[in-house]
Amino acid sequence: MKLSRVGEDRLLAALLPSLRIAKTVVAGAGDDCAVIKLRGNRDFLVLKTDCVVEQVHFPSSAKPTDIGWKAMMRPLSDFAATSAVPQFALITLIVRQETEARRIKRIYRGLNAAAAQFDVSIVGGETSRTPGPLMLSISVAGSVERNRFVSRRGGKVGDDLFVTGRLGGALRHKHLRFVPRIAESRWLTENFSVHAMIDLSDGLGTDLPRLARASKVGFKINIHKLPLTAGCNIDNALSDGEDYELLFAISARERDRLQTSWRKKFRQLPLTRIGELRSKFDIRNSKLPGGYVHFE
Amino acid sequence: MKLSRVGEDRLLAALLPSLRIAKTVVAGAGDDCAVIKLRGNRDFLVLKTDCVVEQVHFPSSAKPTDIGWKAMMRPLSDFAATSAVPQFALITLIVRQETEARRIKRIYRGLNAAAAQFDVSIVGGETSRTPGPLMLSISVAGSVERNRFVSRRGGKVGDDLFVTGRLGGALRHKHLRFVPRIAESRWLTENFSVHAMIDLSDGLGTDLPRLARASKVGFKINIHKLPLTAGCNIDNALSDGEDYELLFAISARERDRLQTSWRKKFRQLPLTRIGELRSKFDIRNSKLPGGYVHFE
Repeated sequence: MKLSRVGEDRLLAALLPSLRIAKTVVAGAGDDCAVIKLRGNRDFLVLKTDCVVEQVHFPSSAKPTDIGWKAMMRPLSDFAATSAVPQFALITLIVRQETEARRIKRIYRGLNAAAAQFDVSIVGGETSRTPGPLMLSISVAGSVERNRFVSRRGGKVGDDLFVTGRLGGALRHKHLRFVPRIAESRWLTENFSVHAMIDLSDGLGTDLPRLARASKVGFKINIHKLPLTAGCNIDNALSDGEDYELLFAISARERDRLQTSWRKKFRQLPLTRIGELRSKFDIRNSKLPGGYVHFE
Repeated sequence: MKLSRVGEDRLLAALLPSLRIAKTVVAGAGDDCAVIKLRGNRDFLVLKTDCVVEQVHFPSSAKPTDIGWKAMMRPLSDFAATSAVPQFALITLIVRQETEARRIKRIYRGLNAAAAQFDVSIVGGETSRTPGPLMLSISVAGSVERNRFVSRRGGKVGDDLFVTGRLGGALRHKHLRFVPRIAESRWLTENFSVHAMIDLSDGLGTDLPRLARASKVGFKINIHKLPLTAGCNIDNALSDGEDYELLFAISARERDRLQTSWRKKFRQLPLTRIGELRSKFDIRNSKLPGGYVHFE
């Protein structure tokens, strides 16, 4: 069977049980980041790798600095989902031999600017030739305090569901220039107990069911309350993807304090309560692209 | 100017000074692995990423298990050069959508087998589509004791130069099935003070000058003493590449003890003294492909 028919999620799920996992691995394949307990180290080690491929993640006409920026920011968005601090990055750049050195320098300028934004040190670079499209793979190492680590898996029945920012329409430019919600995520876990979190890379319609499945709960959202990007509709918000906003679950008891202090801290960035986690039974009431949503 | 004319080493050298380096970085871009001092951790954190590209690092006809094996073993060979212990791997697999799922499973079987050989846990997997050739990028995290970390940079004038195994001809199969010299490297630093080390991925004619330059010394080798693979000549040993053997510099005072105990420990694997490190002056007496060699 072709990969396109099997689907990446299903294929990885089939392959992953056979992969070797050490006891020190707190979160591994299937989570946003790999999270590891190192002997003698108070914090967890956090690892993530991600790639961008020409014609898949960016058009050939994209500005080289934007390509570098997006390549670096994608794994950093997974750090945001984990509430981890990125520290070190390794870059693998795969290009045609006839690529202009000037173009590569500009890609690096984008990589550097993105890394600088979050004090990430680029500690290694590798280039390889290819007869095919340009490709960048970035791997990032960092850390998270044991009591601030968040995964997709801790959501509880009754938790409020919040999203940051606005959803939909990212493919009209924003996806190449986004800033991962690391500052917001770190502020959240400094001040609140966040039960579960995920970054919205594939769209709410796909990523919310992922969070719910990982937490073994259902959910109920009011799709008419979704914070829409100007010019976008509900379907865009659910399915466009590449929003790189945060979706998180937090005790409903924290609702007032969260909303009040968020407004003070992040005046420019909306925080929207879109629904809540429910018992498992609710999960299949209605089908939306890529996941199951219960309409209010 | 095109990348093919600038050369990857020169291009990276031009880009790297502008990359951000934190004070905790012991070895970074330009070394085999990135080596990092983590606060509160006795050992250094070691990071490496490497990739294989179809038609560049393996022919399209290569067995899928061999592709996975080579992809995993390449970064592990850099761990050998650093005398570090690899522990965790992240896999990025980039394939055409019409790839057979069976082929991908076999690639993973090769990745798994290679990881298992060195007790490496695969803690994350990512797949992406591409309209181009198959590509695997593997990033590995591990550790090395502070007093056993070896880089290219510690070679001293008068040191003996040794290589493990036999050189040349790797492209006739061996490059897809090699076993990185991690056991040998760990044994070396357990029992000896190794001043500088590198794995021979691009051929002795390129990698020896790299070690010498990084150590700021010259060298002198007897090319008639190189340990040749059966059917290979001196030129193959210098230029074929992909040997994945170790080249290391060690005090001449250790010569007898090293040779005697090596023969007892690794009966099957030759260890050959090929020359010595010299003062800088000697370095340009004669030119060999990819580097400078002084004939004895």
